[in-house]
Amino acid sequence: MAEKKGVTFSTVDLSADGQRLIIIDQTLLPGTMKLLELRAQEDIREAIYLLKVRGAPAIGVAAAIGLYLAALDLAPECGDDEEVFYAKLAEARDYLKSARPTAVNLMWALDRMYAKAETSKGAGVAGLVEILKQEALTIREEDIDVCRRLGEYGLTVLKKGQGILTHCNAGQLATVKYGTATAPMYLGHEQGYDFKIFADETRPLLQGARLTSFELSEAGMDVTLICDNMASSVMQKGWVQTVITGCDRVAANGDSANKIGTSGVAIIAKHYGVPFYISAPTSTIDFECATGADIEIEERPGDEIKKQWYTEPMAPEAAKTYNPAFDVTDHSLITGIITEFGIAYPPFSESLKEIKKKMEAAKNE
Amino acid sequence: MAEKKGVTFSTVDLSADGQRLIIIDQTLLPGTMKLLELRAQEDIREAIYLLKVRGAPAIGVAAAIGLYLAALDLAPECGDDEEVFYAKLAEARDYLKSARPTAVNLMWALDRMYAKAETSKGAGVAGLVEILKQEALTIREEDIDVCRRLGEYGLTVLKKGQGILTHCNAGQLATVKYGTATAPMYLGHEQGYDFKIFADETRPLLQGARLTSFELSEAGMDVTLICDNMASSVMQKGWVQTVITGCDRVAANGDSANKIGTSGVAIIAKHYGVPFYISAPTSTIDFECATGADIEIEERPGDEIKKQWYTEPMAPEAAKTYNPAFDVTDHSLITGIITEFGIAYPPFSESLKEIKKKMEAAKNE
Repeated sequence: MAEKKGVTFSTVDLSADGQRLIIIDQTLLPGTMKLLELRAQEDIREAIYLLKVRGAPAIGVAAAIGLYLAALDLAPECGDDEEVFYAKLAEARDYLKSARPTAVNLMWALDRMYAKAETSKGAGVAGLVEILKQEALTIREEDIDVCRRLGEYGLTVLKKGQGILTHCNAGQLATVKYGTATAPMYLGHEQGYDFKIFADETRPLLQGARLTSFELSEAGMDVTLICDNMASSVMQKGWVQTVITGCDRVAANGDSANKIGTSGVAIIAKHYGVPFYISAPTSTIDFECATGADIEIEERPGDEIKKQWYTEPMAPEAAKTYNPAFDVTDHSLITGIITEFGIAYPPFSESLKEIKKKMEAAKNE
Repeated sequence: MAEKKGVTFSTVDLSADGQRLIIIDQTLLPGTMKLLELRAQEDIREAIYLLKVRGAPAIGVAAAIGLYLAALDLAPECGDDEEVFYAKLAEARDYLKSARPTAVNLMWALDRMYAKAETSKGAGVAGLVEILKQEALTIREEDIDVCRRLGEYGLTVLKKGQGILTHCNAGQLATVKYGTATAPMYLGHEQGYDFKIFADETRPLLQGARLTSFELSEAGMDVTLICDNMASSVMQKGWVQTVITGCDRVAANGDSANKIGTSGVAIIAKHYGVPFYISAPTSTIDFECATGADIEIEERPGDEIKKQWYTEPMAPEAAKTYNPAFDVTDHSLITGIITEFGIAYPPFSESLKEIKKKMEAAKNE
């Protein structure tokens, strides 16, 4: 039986004395597990830029804590002048934003932090710093809370001892804790569910091998790494009762964009009668996007397929490549979309609207 | 438009002067294209042992030419004594067999060569050497002929300009010429069909990247290398009109064992309505094997997934792996099985019997 270690690390945290951002250097995984304690803005920006911290939620939380630490450092230069403080804070915010200008969650978290300071005028510089600290911790707690709720809802469709297959890394390493697709696995593991997890390695960037198989085995789960093309084989053997993946963007009709290969896994799961779930915090649901056809798919360099990680090129220079980063899984292949407000079932165009209502009701609470 | 080079090399050949075995050193592909000219038995055995020549048909032909060269070298020691010649030839046969004791085609080719010599008693030592040379060339020509016929039948289900997806390497590099799955691509290319080929890289050993994308681009075809998990994406885009793969073993009901990942490609093809063909020389059809359930699947070391080719391990030591070398594609997913005696269509349990009749009729001609 696998050793139950529980969750042994948090991907992004503020040190107990409130003085440093603590992250795992994900560029060293799976070979080396190194915690970084960062304080200087240059170091925090670089960690985001170099993907030492990655995954939309994790980046947002790291940036929020980063902006609080900026406030802590710039406060002594401001005396009691809030206007000077706001000006310097805006500079720090823009500096952190420049680390990954297209990362929506980075912008969102930094704007939310700044807005919180702005709406707290009159608290005094020291008061504003404290308010920013609390806001960063709130953003972090909210992320944990969302993932825990994804896990709780996800767990309702799982049974003890089941085989679960996942693709890519929608894991704890992409969030603060629990992950999205992995949340029910962590919660189930804490409760003795003894899942047998299958992790697709996820070519070409191997997030499943480097990150998912790492974090789940670190947590003491029974995880088996397979090549992407072995998913059919393990389902044919009856080893998989449920597939759960993350997602990058869900359209209003339930079509879901996720890491390349997800749509193939969904088709294979359907063939074998294995339920296929998407774990989607509502922040990834784009109600303005009607169907998957409206989702643009990023194409990446062919050298990721031909050269990256290898001791020498594994394909001839002359061969063309096609390297889409994502694909769209048709809503007809999806059993359910797990959100922090419950699980949406087909027809998704209706059920996602219900989720939206709950989401808005929660905002207005 | 891709440059039409035609077929620029033969995987296994006898030199024009009949003195040396010529093979491509496949262990150096795709980085280096090096022809080896071998004469000494030690070198030929080593080439087979080290997979410098690979693929069942190619190994058989290389061994047959190898045994002829052995005969050429040992003849001077035999004077006119045929019995001495047979004894030495049997030794040479067994020495070559020991290169890969489980390679069925290696045994088959060497036994056929020896039997040919045995049934030619009285020809004299010099005569026997010449008979062995002709037999080796016949085995080689038969392989080319089988592949060409696979190609001709395969071409009947293809149209100009179509997109064709293939998995692993059932290519010229596994045979003497044309390959099995690739045979219709080579013949079509010679006839200006302008196919767009998609080659799955085929993890973990990357035969699609290293061999298929190499040989097809060398031949001047338009070939695009993709990761295995991108097959769904290119079919979703409508870029693939036909899938053709090779096979290792076909059961009497049409269930087909082939390189791991084939069954997933077949399921995805069926989902998108793309015809899925297996190219199967009749030597791979096992009429004694009722269904795919009777086919044992070889499991290989996990380090092929975690470490091989990489600059450093891509998964933690602790993560378990599952690494089956093959999977079984259910006959219900197969549109047709292309053989050198025509294409078998469902129900395969009937149509393969018809193929068998043609096969036996040809043997008795």
